[in-house]
Amino acid sequence: MSDSLNNIRVVLCDTRHPGNIGSAARAMKTMGLSQLYLVSPHQFPDKQADWMATNAVDVLENAIVCADLDTALSGVVLAVACTARSREIAVPAVTAREAAARLVEVAQSQPVALVFGSEVRGLTTDQVKRCQMVATILTDASHSSLNLAAAVQVFAYELRQHAVQETIKPTVDKPRVLATHEEIELFYAHLERELMACGFLNPVEPKRFMQRVRRMFARMQLEHDEVKILRGVVRTLRTPKKR
Amino acid sequence: MSDSLNNIRVVLCDTRHPGNIGSAARAMKTMGLSQLYLVSPHQFPDKQADWMATNAVDVLENAIVCADLDTALSGVVLAVACTARSREIAVPAVTAREAAARLVEVAQSQPVALVFGSEVRGLTTDQVKRCQMVATILTDASHSSLNLAAAVQVFAYELRQHAVQETIKPTVDKPRVLATHEEIELFYAHLERELMACGFLNPVEPKRFMQRVRRMFARMQLEHDEVKILRGVVRTLRTPKKR
Repeated sequence: MSDSLNNIRVVLCDTRHPGNIGSAARAMKTMGLSQLYLVSPHQFPDKQADWMATNAVDVLENAIVCADLDTALSGVVLAVACTARSREIAVPAVTAREAAARLVEVAQSQPVALVFGSEVRGLTTDQVKRCQMVATILTDASHSSLNLAAAVQVFAYELRQHAVQETIKPTVDKPRVLATHEEIELFYAHLERELMACGFLNPVEPKRFMQRVRRMFARMQLEHDEVKILRGVVRTLRTPKKR
Repeated sequence: MSDSLNNIRVVLCDTRHPGNIGSAARAMKTMGLSQLYLVSPHQFPDKQADWMATNAVDVLENAIVCADLDTALSGVVLAVACTARSREIAVPAVTAREAAARLVEVAQSQPVALVFGSEVRGLTTDQVKRCQMVATILTDASHSSLNLAAAVQVFAYELRQHAVQETIKPTVDKPRVLATHEEIELFYAHLERELMACGFLNPVEPKRFMQRVRRMFARMQLEHDEVKILRGVVRTLRTPKKR
């Protein structure tokens, strides 16, 4: 799992603003990526990059600066060009999600790369040609320009979701103790009795309303303790406690 | 499809840096989102915000500034709190992807919201309590702090991916008419008042119990009609009808 993330390089080509390199490093680190390659950055290392990286300065310190894309792709078996524009070049074009799935799959055993162009011009035709796949983040057609770091964040996020099949663990440690069928039936019977007694329910036709109530509480997936609480609420609303 | 995106509000609470508001607006616009609500921004409007928004200045111009979260959630039927931290409050916790699926589904017919906290402290407990769901972007455990705009970008991206899918498979069921934020808050206030009056609740410490109640009903995703029913039940249990 984390092995495959370690096999994924993020390659930034011709980046103009060092702040964007820092933001990209931060975006990578949040998703467990660490292999940063910089092809001809205009300004690096740079204080602005460190500043934007916050806790990901180690990613910058370990970044490998290369003179050209071929050097950055050395040893890589699958390189994906990230681009917003549709191009004439007929390499396979896929969504970010599809690219991430493929990259993670291959990265289980061999190095792969995700290649981003400059903030202003994107990737050159020559750079795209050196990749085996072109991937696009699906955006609003009229406004497709993601900030460089934002694009890195989305791809890094997709890579992690594919690499790590995590789920959110319940925030409470102890598992929920759900109410049994009998407990829930006793609650419905109690509620029906009291609604009848207070005049809310028509004694001749209570079924329809209670059916509605059942539907509501079924969605709730009541816990054992919650049934007790609800019954206490109904009891006390009907028969107030002495003060 | 774009209808559901138009029904999704992005609510930024207590944002410190106007540049982050601008970046968030840009992130929204790339994914076709436009409804921005700002709860007590430290500095807005601001040139730095406009600068970072680039082509999304219209999103900033149409942003609605609110004094509190309740105002921003007015009319909303499902509010999702975006948080990196795990919390004691056990409202349903889901991944960004799961939250996006649910938000897009509900937003086909009614307004929903995605709520973000300040860059420094995130959402307060009180703000989270006002939401029905907590969503987390799955990150590397040791480095979970996404920049605010990066988090907005990931959620906006997920929302769009779900909204676009939606055109492929049309929904068959007629949508449920969910209760608005105000309707649900009024129900809680009504219930608390009556539980206090009948002696069920200790007037000194009602918060803990009401928190438990909120948790239960948040799971229920109450409909408009169901809130009316529940309030009728509480009212009549307390004050029986004359025969």
